[in-house]
Amino acid sequence: MERTLIGELGQHIGKTVTINGWVDVRRDHGKLVFLDIRDRSGKVQVVFLSNKTEAGNAAKTTRPEWAVKIGGIVKDRPENMRVPGANGEIELEGFHIEVLARAAELPFEKDADVNLDTLFDYRPLTLRSEHSRDIFKVQATIVDAYRKSLQRQGFTEFQAPALVGGDAEGGAMAFKVEYYYDKTAYLATSPQFYKQIMVGPFERAFTIAKIFRAEKSATTRHLSELTQMDFEMGFIKDHLDVMTVLEQTVRDTVTATAEQHADVFARFGTSAPKLGTAFPILTLREAQKILGVAEEPDLEPEQERQICAWALEKHGSNFVFITHFPTSKRAFYTYADPADPTFSKSFDLLCRGLEINSGSQRIHDYHEMVAKLESRGLDPSLFSFYLQAFKYGMPPHGGSSTGLERFTARMLELPNVKEASAFPRDLNRIDSLLHESTPDADAT
Amino acid sequence: MERTLIGELGQHIGKTVTINGWVDVRRDHGKLVFLDIRDRSGKVQVVFLSNKTEAGNAAKTTRPEWAVKIGGIVKDRPENMRVPGANGEIELEGFHIEVLARAAELPFEKDADVNLDTLFDYRPLTLRSEHSRDIFKVQATIVDAYRKSLQRQGFTEFQAPALVGGDAEGGAMAFKVEYYYDKTAYLATSPQFYKQIMVGPFERAFTIAKIFRAEKSATTRHLSELTQMDFEMGFIKDHLDVMTVLEQTVRDTVTATAEQHADVFARFGTSAPKLGTAFPILTLREAQKILGVAEEPDLEPEQERQICAWALEKHGSNFVFITHFPTSKRAFYTYADPADPTFSKSFDLLCRGLEINSGSQRIHDYHEMVAKLESRGLDPSLFSFYLQAFKYGMPPHGGSSTGLERFTARMLELPNVKEASAFPRDLNRIDSLLHESTPDADAT
Repeated sequence: MERTLIGELGQHIGKTVTINGWVDVRRDHGKLVFLDIRDRSGKVQVVFLSNKTEAGNAAKTTRPEWAVKIGGIVKDRPENMRVPGANGEIELEGFHIEVLARAAELPFEKDADVNLDTLFDYRPLTLRSEHSRDIFKVQATIVDAYRKSLQRQGFTEFQAPALVGGDAEGGAMAFKVEYYYDKTAYLATSPQFYKQIMVGPFERAFTIAKIFRAEKSATTRHLSELTQMDFEMGFIKDHLDVMTVLEQTVRDTVTATAEQHADVFARFGTSAPKLGTAFPILTLREAQKILGVAEEPDLEPEQERQICAWALEKHGSNFVFITHFPTSKRAFYTYADPADPTFSKSFDLLCRGLEINSGSQRIHDYHEMVAKLESRGLDPSLFSFYLQAFKYGMPPHGGSSTGLERFTARMLELPNVKEASAFPRDLNRIDSLLHESTPDADAT
Repeated sequence: MERTLIGELGQHIGKTVTINGWVDVRRDHGKLVFLDIRDRSGKVQVVFLSNKTEAGNAAKTTRPEWAVKIGGIVKDRPENMRVPGANGEIELEGFHIEVLARAAELPFEKDADVNLDTLFDYRPLTLRSEHSRDIFKVQATIVDAYRKSLQRQGFTEFQAPALVGGDAEGGAMAFKVEYYYDKTAYLATSPQFYKQIMVGPFERAFTIAKIFRAEKSATTRHLSELTQMDFEMGFIKDHLDVMTVLEQTVRDTVTATAEQHADVFARFGTSAPKLGTAFPILTLREAQKILGVAEEPDLEPEQERQICAWALEKHGSNFVFITHFPTSKRAFYTYADPADPTFSKSFDLLCRGLEINSGSQRIHDYHEMVAKLESRGLDPSLFSFYLQAFKYGMPPHGGSSTGLERFTARMLELPNVKEASAFPRDLNRIDSLLHESTPDADAT
C-alpha cells in the first residue's frame, strides 16, 4: 500500500493508510500502546488497541528511534483527548507494524537538554531532537529567503572558490592546505575579492560561500568554518545604496521566517526580530555618544547589546546600522568618506546585540586601489589578478556579508552560535568522523 | 535623475532617461559615435548625433569596459536599422555622458576566442564576455531550479562541512589542512556521510556543497574544487525510488533552463538536452551487451558516449541511467543487490556522453555496515561518529550526487568542464590571486 505522509493524515479520516517514520516516543499503558511516529512532514499518535494482537505485541517491543512502517485507520480523537497543534485532533489506530530498523538504546533522551560537548559528540542523534530540527528548518528558510530576495533585486548567484592562492584578507587567519607538488594553498577567509570581480560580468552578484577562519579565540560568537551570504553591487551612489538592499533582504528573510515558523518561535519562547519602520542608522561616534562611552575604533560586545536595546526602545527595531568606522581599522579596499577620510563608508548591521553583517562601499579606481595597497605596506604586484577587475573598468560599488549561523542564532536567540551549525568546527572540534571512537559501548 | 535599467528602456520610448553601464563596443563613424552599453539587465545601442557637442566628443574618447552614466532620449530605430533581439528596435539618443571609471587598454577583445590559459589568467576580464556570462547565468539557473525541485519534493537544505577529521571516502584523494596546534584536518571529498546523518532529522535532505579532490589527472572532466548538488532520502524501497526523484529534479532543471535561456542555447549552437518520455535504464551488463564490449567493471569514456548516442536514437533522450555496478567497485556503504550481491543497487546518470550523477541505495543496518567496513579492511571504531546514524535507527535510504560544473558543461555542450567553473582549480592552477603577477604592463 502506498505511503501516506503523516502531515496529510487529516485528509484521510476513516481511511486505511500506511505510514513510515521513526518512533519518537513510546508509552506502554498495558492494554494500550501509544507510539508517537515522526516523518519529514509531522508527527502523529498511533494507538494499538490490544496487547493480545500480534501488532500490539510488536509495538510494545519498539523503542525510540526505531524506523517503522505502520498500517492503520485514521480516526478522530475522542473530544476530551484532543490536543492543540498539528494532528492533535486525530490519531491512527494501528493494526500492523513492520520494523524497518532497530536502534540501540539511546545514551540519553533525544530531546534532553544536554551540554554542548555531548550535543556535538552525539550529533547524528541530537540533530533528531525537536530543538535541533527547529533550528535547522529555520536556517534552511533563512538561506532560501535571503537568496530569493537578492534574486528579486536583480542579483545573480555564483560559486566562489574555497581554495585560494593566498589569504584574501592578508591576515594570519587562513588555514594552510597542502596542494599539489609541495605547493601551498589556503582556505578562503572571505569571498570578497571574487564577488568584486563578479560585479564586472553581472553588476549584482551574490554567493552563499563557506569560509574558514583560524580564530584562536573560543567565544560564543566564533566558528572556524562558517557560511556567508555575500553580495556585491555596482553603480551605487554610496554605502547607503548597499544598506538599502541589505535592509530589504533582511526584512524579506525575517518576514518569511516569521510566516513559516510561528510554532518554532513559540517553542523557543521568542518571536521574530522586530523590524520597525526602518532600521535606525547611527555613525559609530553617534552610537558612542548615545551610550556615553569613549571614542574607541569599534563597539565592545556589551556596547553592541546596549545600542540594540536603545534601537528597540526608540525605534521598535531589533536591527541597527552602525556606520563610519575608522578607515584605518577596515580592510584596505574600504572607501574613505571624502568629507572626513579618517572615517570610512562602512557599516555593521547589529541584530539583538550581535553584529550579523558587515559591509561598505569599496575603492573602485585602479590607481587609488594600488596606492592604498602600497600605503598599507602591501605589494600590488601580488594582487594583480584581483586588480584586473579595477584595471578593466570598475564602477563605484559595494557589498556586504551576513553570517548565516549568527543570523540564525539571533533569529532564535540561541546563546551560542555553535548551536546554529549542524557540524561546528572550532578550536577543539573538527568532529570525530573517522579518527576518534565515541565512549559508549557497541550497539545492541 | 533616477537610473533606468537597460532591459526596461522599451517601456520609455520618447522619454528622457539615465542609464548606467559598461561600454561593450564603441563604433566611431566620424559624425556619429555609437556605443553599445551593457548593464545587468541587457544591452542597448546609444548614438551620439554629432561630434561637435561636448557629449559626442566625450563619447568618442571612451573605450571598451569603461563604466559610464548616460543621459538620453529613447527612440524607435528607423525601420531599416532594426535588428532582432532585445532592444533591437530602439536606441538611445545620448546627450550627456559621465565617465564613472576608465579601463586600461584591453590585452585582447573581451569576446575573443582565447585559449584556456589566457581565459583563466584574465578571468576578471574574460568573465565579462557574453560567452562566459551566458555560461554562469545558465549555471545560476541550474542550481536554483535543482534546489526548487528538491524543495517541492519535500527535501530540507543543510550546510555540509568542508573541513573534516578524515577523508570521508577513505581514499588518497583528500587535501590535507594544517588545523590548530599541529592537528591535521582534511577537505571533504564528498558530503556523503553528513547527508546520510541528515536523513535522521529530516528524512529528505539536500546540500549544495563544495568538495575537493586531489585528482592527479589532467582531463577535460576533472576539477580539484567542485560544487556538488547532493540529496539523500529515507524510507525508500530501493535505488529506483532515488532515481525517480533524481529524474524529476533533472527534468525540472532542464525545463527551467530551456525556458529561461533560449537565447543562450541559440548562441551556443545547441538546444537543451532532450528528455524523452522517461530516461532509459540499463544495467551495466545490458549496456555492455548493446555496445558489444567486454564485461568490464565500468564504462570507458568512449563507451559512455556510445551508450548516450544509443539512448538518443532509441529513446529520444540525452539522459540514460546505468545501474548495477559491481559491488566491489563502489563505496563500502553501497547496498548489494540480494538477487546477485556481486552487483549493487547503484546507478550513474549519463548526459550527452558524460557521467553527471552517481548514486545508490545504501546499507542501513548498523551491523551490516560494521561488517562491511571490516570486510574492506577498515576499522569501524574510526567511523564511530558516522555509525551513530545507523546505531540509532536508520531506515532504508539512498541518494545521489550531481556535479554542477559537469551538468552545466553538458547542458551547453562545452568541451571542457573547467569552462563551467568561474575560478577553476586543477593540477596547475590555484589562481594567481596574490602570489603571481600577470604579464601585462601597468594600467593607463
